Amino acid sequence: MRDFLPADKARRERVLAVIRERYRAHGFDEIETPVMEEYGRLHAGIGGDNEKLAYNVLRRGLDADAIRAAADEPAALAVGRLADLGLRYDLTVPLARFYATHRAELPTVFRSIQIAPVWRAERPQKGRYRQFVQCDIDIIGDASARAEAELAVATLDTLDALGLAGGSIRINDRRVLDWMLETFGFAPEQRSGVLITIDKLDKIGPAGVAAELRERGADTAAVDAFEAFLLRPQALQTPPYGEQQIRGALPDGAPDDVVAHLAGIGTAVAAARPAGEAIPLVFDPFLVRGMGYYTGTILELAHPSVSYSLGGGGRYDGMIGRFLGQDVPAVGFSIGFERIVDLVAPEEDAAARSVVLVHDKDVPVAELAALKARFVAEGIRVRLETRTKNLKALLERAAADGYTRFATVAAGQDEPELKPLG
Amino acid sequence: MRDFLPADKARRERVLAVIRERYRAHGFDEIETPVMEEYGRLHAGIGGDNEKLAYNVLRRGLDADAIRAAADEPAALAVGRLADLGLRYDLTVPLARFYATHRAELPTVFRSIQIAPVWRAERPQKGRYRQFVQCDIDIIGDASARAEAELAVATLDTLDALGLAGGSIRINDRRVLDWMLETFGFAPEQRSGVLITIDKLDKIGPAGVAAELRERGADTAAVDAFEAFLLRPQALQTPPYGEQQIRGALPDGAPDDVVAHLAGIGTAVAAARPAGEAIPLVFDPFLVRGMGYYTGTILELAHPSVSYSLGGGGRYDGMIGRFLGQDVPAVGFSIGFERIVDLVAPEEDAAARSVVLVHDKDVPVAELAALKARFVAEGIRVRLETRTKNLKALLERAAADGYTRFATVAAGQDEPELKPLG
Repeated sequence: MRDFLPADKARRERVLAVIRERYRAHGFDEIETPVMEEYGRLHAGIGGDNEKLAYNVLRRGLDADAIRAAADEPAALAVGRLADLGLRYDLTVPLARFYATHRAELPTVFRSIQIAPVWRAERPQKGRYRQFVQCDIDIIGDASARAEAELAVATLDTLDALGLAGGSIRINDRRVLDWMLETFGFAPEQRSGVLITIDKLDKIGPAGVAAELRERGADTAAVDAFEAFLLRPQALQTPPYGEQQIRGALPDGAPDDVVAHLAGIGTAVAAARPAGEAIPLVFDPFLVRGMGYYTGTILELAHPSVSYSLGGGGRYDGMIGRFLGQDVPAVGFSIGFERIVDLVAPEEDAAARSVVLVHDKDVPVAELAALKARFVAEGIRVRLETRTKNLKALLERAAADGYTRFATVAAGQDEPELKPLG
Repeated sequence: MRDFLPADKARRERVLAVIRERYRAHGFDEIETPVMEEYGRLHAGIGGDNEKLAYNVLRRGLDADAIRAAADEPAALAVGRLADLGLRYDLTVPLARFYATHRAELPTVFRSIQIAPVWRAERPQKGRYRQFVQCDIDIIGDASARAEAELAVATLDTLDALGLAGGSIRINDRRVLDWMLETFGFAPEQRSGVLITIDKLDKIGPAGVAAELRERGADTAAVDAFEAFLLRPQALQTPPYGEQQIRGALPDGAPDDVVAHLAGIGTAVAAARPAGEAIPLVFDPFLVRGMGYYTGTILELAHPSVSYSLGGGGRYDGMIGRFLGQDVPAVGFSIGFERIVDLVAPEEDAAARSVVLVHDKDVPVAELAALKARFVAEGIRVRLETRTKNLKALLERAAADGYTRFATVAAGQDEPELKPLG
């Protein structure tokens, strides 16, 4: 978990303001839920592996007997006896709970924005944090390709607005994966393991995938068929995105409804994006994405400046039903804020109008207050500093903090003379 | 703990943006700390009564033996065996920890902004929440009256910017209180109890205070002297604010340095505030404020529209030293965000450019995407809705959410005709 110093915090808030503004412009509405949810809800099996990483909050008023009773439980249950709340590990479980609670107060198709921290007790490593901000948009109540298209367009527009034009979205459908595995002849009980291996295709290549599948003991004929398909001559990703390309990237006989849904997303995205731009979608039949709750489209945000993804999402038509007792279609996209904030250029308006006033110790407080007020009224940020022996260090600190001008102030002085800093 | 629906969330973010912008304009810099701090730090005695209200986070990897060992500890220690982290209950303890950690990277006088939630396990009641947002500004490293004046001016300017002009700040000094109690003859060991009673002066009046002090068993002569002072003929708060008024509101012989500090704040605030405005400070020698860590000036924000305070703060010159091992002067002010957000007028720009497009079911997704993109590009928020039998309900929902216009869209239609909503 990290502290953020002023320069970092300012950049984060600037990026968040752009994301919030763009998402709102696209008709999404921001909501907020408490950081703590009930322990049972966080551990209902919806959160996948993240459930194990949850921070759990101690019940209040536990006495010695209650603690001892927890110790007597099997490990898996003991925590649930000691904790009744937990910090959310994602924004999707809270959204499902929120929607089930407030549905009557929300529009038929609800487009939500959530911009908020989540917590996971990960082993600390570069680029992984125990507290990090997620920026999610979700559309609940629309099963059509319009929903995926709205998410994709809002996301790409936001990336553009952050100075990161050129983004694209890799896209697939869990139903495509299921159908392919069935077509190649993988047994149903092997399929989730097979998907874990397929997910490594980018890293280990077709031969590596085939070898690992054989090691896993997957059906030989199925692996052979799959390998032959992977190694077939035609290129997998031939733009432009569309039905032709999707069918060409798949074995023959792909399900029409799924292909039509995927193609429909492309037509809608193309219609919304700037004229002349190539459709910023890339069909990838081997895109897997980890979360078990995805039921249809899966999406991943790519940008030419980096090799890793900048966010992802997908359809989870089954989840809301677990809270509401009635199925409602839903699809979401989570932009990778912590990754994106590192890519955004340093604050352009650091040259914002600002001044450091270094005053002698004997300048009356009221004189300083009046001087500062005059600058503030003109929209100029002011930092007051008492002159110290080491004026140079003081000015360097101010320059590092983004101040652009300084002036020295003596008692009774009329108008301080502004000089450029650094 | 509360969910926030779109209208509430939008208002909260709008108020936060104004607070952030105004505080930054006054030369404060925003920082952020993790929501969790070490258990030991949260329970080091600095947080006062709030320590008891902390939510504690379960240690990870506790086994049955460790849990049993906790059960064998006295209640006060058991929680510390089970928990190693906790959610912060204020922003002052984290700030002191932050400053001690990062001092070398911060300016000599550090003016911080913290805008963030805190958690207290309070019994739920009207206006009290278990998760609520605090907006704190603090100045670390300046012992002069300039610091209090900067806090007061930034706070009042922010209130003005929120459409809540007319605010004022009640002000006192813990050293005034200590000196008064000594002057009246209260024994040192009784003084903290006496302060708790004095804090009720507004509610129970001089006679009530005197009666309660007698009940408490406070020294009779001291109570008599104090009561006579409270009932003396001259009005306590005679504007304008200044040394004369402060001395007039106190028994004879008030300490010169404290009076000069209080008067100096007034001169500086007056110099910074709009010309012609009465000094927006009110000296109140019986203002107490609860936190034990205050060492000097104490402040409370008042507004004519409400009887309760809208925030408060004070000097806590001793606290940073507990983390740093070296005393550093500090003073802070916490604006009561949750109270203020309720007072701010509904969004002025709800009339922001926005439109609901209600389309027939057969309009192609790509047509809708193109139409929406056109409005978004013009800065108009768009909500797409599929026409349902109950069009009226759909439009009422949109009007309640702040949408101002709507249009119906049929397939192949050229330009939708915008009509006013509601």
